[in-house]
Amino acid sequence: MTLSSTARSTTALSSTARSTVTRLRERASSDRADLYAVLDAGLVCHLGLVRDGAPVVLPTGYGRIDDTVYVHGSTGAGYLRLADGAPVCLTVTHLDGIVYARSVFHHSMNYRSAVVHGTARRVTDADERWDALHAIVEQLSPGSWEHAREPDPKEMAATAVFALDLAEASVKVRTGPPSDDDEDLAAGGRWAGVLPVHTTFGAPLPCPELPEGAATPPHVAER
Amino acid sequence: MTLSSTARSTTALSSTARSTVTRLRERASSDRADLYAVLDAGLVCHLGLVRDGAPVVLPTGYGRIDDTVYVHGSTGAGYLRLADGAPVCLTVTHLDGIVYARSVFHHSMNYRSAVVHGTARRVTDADERWDALHAIVEQLSPGSWEHAREPDPKEMAATAVFALDLAEASVKVRTGPPSDDDEDLAAGGRWAGVLPVHTTFGAPLPCPELPEGAATPPHVAER
Repeated sequence: MTLSSTARSTTALSSTARSTVTRLRERASSDRADLYAVLDAGLVCHLGLVRDGAPVVLPTGYGRIDDTVYVHGSTGAGYLRLADGAPVCLTVTHLDGIVYARSVFHHSMNYRSAVVHGTARRVTDADERWDALHAIVEQLSPGSWEHAREPDPKEMAATAVFALDLAEASVKVRTGPPSDDDEDLAAGGRWAGVLPVHTTFGAPLPCPELPEGAATPPHVAER
Repeated sequence: MTLSSTARSTTALSSTARSTVTRLRERASSDRADLYAVLDAGLVCHLGLVRDGAPVVLPTGYGRIDDTVYVHGSTGAGYLRLADGAPVCLTVTHLDGIVYARSVFHHSMNYRSAVVHGTARRVTDADERWDALHAIVEQLSPGSWEHAREPDPKEMAATAVFALDLAEASVKVRTGPPSDDDEDLAAGGRWAGVLPVHTTFGAPLPCPELPEGAATPPHVAER
């Protein structure tokens, strides 16, 4: 029933204790392409910070450039003050299926997840800030940077950008059917399988303030 | 572009600093029903723990009974040893739409999220453990507890269950069209709107070891 179930492949991208997958190692290759694939397919990450010794986990957008992942937010957001130079954990999860087993115990999920550990660095270089925001916007809404009005200096000043190196990370993937016990397989009579889970886009909803009949541009319509 | 954007409603379910939403308060009612709704609609949470002063954020299943949320895992999973009696943060996020604005700056997401803070309590009472596992399985796969083989004593012994009280939590919701600046509205020429994001189920994939023609039961087929 858990994400710490069987039939999983894992990728540890560094050898520190916290990024080394300790459960059910079936594949221990350090495949950076797996990490990129999981990150690049996502829309939201969950960013972990520590405040007064307790964890805080917040959803936010993100973007990747090479071996750096970026997050941003308003300079007025309290949580960002926690991030500067602090240890963070950035996790991206794709739920791909619900695994129905013959036993409750072997119920599970098919998924892909990436967990990145590191120290957040506040980005101050103007070019890197621009590129990072471009990457974050393009991750969420490809084509928007070109279509929409670019940030002006006031908007840039109101935006804090943080970088996290992809130096310490792990990837976990579970695919395939349930892993039932032999006795449950032999007993029969119970359904087992996978219910796929998809993230899909609906029909675009134009802003009510658009002119009548305004065409939806390809970067939205064809998504 | 961030989850700390405009047009958001917020619900703070307690008055501690960390659960009080400090940005863009538009609604500060303490509506527990909102919290239940966000939690009950989810399949995966992101659980934050602190290890050696650094945050760790892991995806996992969960279930709710009244004002308690439960998670579980293998007793062999290292991260669970961190949770016992420790501060945790449990976050559930639903991405509902991508908000395309006339400016890059006002790009955003429509979403619902719940952030629960508290101290994890390892559940040792046999009845509470059973009920918690039932809730976790039914959250992920309604009907499975009745259809599948129940856990046996050995499986129960291999499973650790943790409880987190819903005493300190906040809910954030963003809905609706983009919030563009007047100048961008007046300038025209750029599309704006919302691309809805849905989580959907595909056609069930029967386990290859099922007998030919085994019927998919209603609790899966009708989902």
